[in-house]
Amino acid sequence: MTAYFDNSATTKPCPAAVKAVAHMLETDWGNPSSLHNLGINAAKELITARKIIADSTGASSDEIIFTSGGTEANNMALFGAVKAKKRLGNRIVTTAIEHESILESAQELEKQGFEVIYLKPDKSGNISKEQLFDVVNDKTILVSMMYVNNEVGTIMPVEAVKRAVKRAGAPALIHTDCVQAYGKIPLSVKKIGADLITVSSHKIHGPKGVGALYINKQANLKNQNFATRFGGEQEKKIRPGTECSPLIAGFAGAVSEFSDLASQEKYIKELNSYAREKLGDMGSVRFNNSETSSPYIINLYVPTFMRSQTVIQELSSEYGIYVSNGSACAKGKKSHVLTAMGLDNETIDKSIRISFCKNNTKEEIDYLVESLTDLIKKHPLEKI
Amino acid sequence: MTAYFDNSATTKPCPAAVKAVAHMLETDWGNPSSLHNLGINAAKELITARKIIADSTGASSDEIIFTSGGTEANNMALFGAVKAKKRLGNRIVTTAIEHESILESAQELEKQGFEVIYLKPDKSGNISKEQLFDVVNDKTILVSMMYVNNEVGTIMPVEAVKRAVKRAGAPALIHTDCVQAYGKIPLSVKKIGADLITVSSHKIHGPKGVGALYINKQANLKNQNFATRFGGEQEKKIRPGTECSPLIAGFAGAVSEFSDLASQEKYIKELNSYAREKLGDMGSVRFNNSETSSPYIINLYVPTFMRSQTVIQELSSEYGIYVSNGSACAKGKKSHVLTAMGLDNETIDKSIRISFCKNNTKEEIDYLVESLTDLIKKHPLEKI
Repeated sequence: MTAYFDNSATTKPCPAAVKAVAHMLETDWGNPSSLHNLGINAAKELITARKIIADSTGASSDEIIFTSGGTEANNMALFGAVKAKKRLGNRIVTTAIEHESILESAQELEKQGFEVIYLKPDKSGNISKEQLFDVVNDKTILVSMMYVNNEVGTIMPVEAVKRAVKRAGAPALIHTDCVQAYGKIPLSVKKIGADLITVSSHKIHGPKGVGALYINKQANLKNQNFATRFGGEQEKKIRPGTECSPLIAGFAGAVSEFSDLASQEKYIKELNSYAREKLGDMGSVRFNNSETSSPYIINLYVPTFMRSQTVIQELSSEYGIYVSNGSACAKGKKSHVLTAMGLDNETIDKSIRISFCKNNTKEEIDYLVESLTDLIKKHPLEKI
Repeated sequence: MTAYFDNSATTKPCPAAVKAVAHMLETDWGNPSSLHNLGINAAKELITARKIIADSTGASSDEIIFTSGGTEANNMALFGAVKAKKRLGNRIVTTAIEHESILESAQELEKQGFEVIYLKPDKSGNISKEQLFDVVNDKTILVSMMYVNNEVGTIMPVEAVKRAVKRAGAPALIHTDCVQAYGKIPLSVKKIGADLITVSSHKIHGPKGVGALYINKQANLKNQNFATRFGGEQEKKIRPGTECSPLIAGFAGAVSEFSDLASQEKYIKELNSYAREKLGDMGSVRFNNSETSSPYIINLYVPTFMRSQTVIQELSSEYGIYVSNGSACAKGKKSHVLTAMGLDNETIDKSIRISFCKNNTKEEIDYLVESLTDLIKKHPLEKI
């Protein structure tokens, strides 16, 4: 038996995504900018894909800019928002537990002279509305807050950001990294209230290498502020270069396979409760996140003499179980999220992330519990 | 019958490329940064792909940075080179007939205060070594010159750039956009003598959405100068974000299908001579480029009352023939290449580009000549 519990790192492309990619490679392979019929056919596929992705969150097609993934979209959002508003203030508000692509961009903006406030989470990874209201002032030009944290699944008060911005009279643009929420929770761009939203294909059973930035047209932003490169006319010149039509179609293929997200969330909640119960029964592991977190993610301390990297390797090699110890982008570096939560080094070093998708089952969880029990028995805490 | 003669805009993905993409989507779909075996398998595929692409030009694997295509690689090269050398001078040398991604980047650098020299071609689209030697001085920090022009196929004196730089005692880095040369002419990074080289997958029967920038390690350049975004640890932090492993494998699949490029070039030369003879026999069309250009490209004035956009549409709809009127990225805007060559507006407005690949045949050329003859008869020059 094998069980893949690393769905927050990447997901298995679904058949509809694989089929759409193949169709674009084998049939509609023309350059979408070409003026002949092969080009026009490819361009039509792009129009369809853009509409599917826009519709999935209540956006309109002209608010979607395709990127190579979440990292590129996050970079475009941060640097673009700052470019658009820098004359009106100097403060950027974000959190200490964002994805690397936000944190490293924010650090670059600090070097450029902006004041960046990193909101700190509590021991469970939560950030409160009050923290947000405390720091957003009338010189705040950007608030960037992820919807669901990628390591511990805490749900951020993103829907309060708009109120905080209004109350402070801030000229701020609002960005939300929805990479870990999209395709999991029913999302509406209106409800989120953000000007800029990041989504990624490979977290929702689409192909790697494509994502999108939603740019709210009500915000009347200049395209050129968000342009991160120079070249042709594609993607409103914000993101020139031949469109990656196979991946964009694959992304849309995955979105078109979204089941009813509310029922899916209900199923995952059941799975999560089942897992928490069974893992709890082991009497040895300890949860780093609470049940108020996204049901898609459990973060777990595993009492063994081995560090989490070794646990991950052994679970994979010996048991065919795939988990992680935080963001794949960080390649095994010490978790900045667990650190910000104030956990002790022992916990940080020996915690793993279990992340679900709709294809996971209770049988897989039983197998995980069985395997973890066996692993801890073989390599107990006392050994070193 | 149909005939695809728009291979400089994009090519049909070859079976090896399609197969490699499908394999990565269906089997090795793990995140290459994940620490478990699914991640390691994906990472191994990346290593193999990187080596195949490096080997194809005599580079080494650690000199290859994957990008989303030629446009991104060209942007990285120009802004990176300037960042690396800006303390040593102010002059940038390029040509007036580069791709949009070079020209628009160069214009941005002009806005930032750099002096950009755009070398102008003669009536046939050629730029001489002498022109180059005349402008490269000891304050030149970058020379960016494409290998083969994408609209008229002229071969640039790129191999003379290194001598020009040496003779002038210039601190310049050398960049060559090899998008239209790679996979067509046998290329060696050593022989080209450039520090930075751009290649693209979808021009060589690989998938769209992936390309690479070669960064010569002998040049001892700092990675951070070339970073265009911030995030994870991927691609030496020059280009963070989950690697697009399906497309990278597809790119390598296409490269592994390179036939003997010298024999292929010989075949295309025969095809080109045949086409020039048959087109010449029509007694009506006029060649905008000479036989010294790359054999892969013929640029042709078509005497009809219709502009080239309409000719392209009609050739496609009525005859199943696919050609273009210049760079697809420019989406039908007036050709800056033919303009720089000093051609008259009538010629610029009514010229088409025929671009070959190894799959084209003499029968297809016969069909093209027959169709063009018919089209000109139906819509002669005099009509308006």
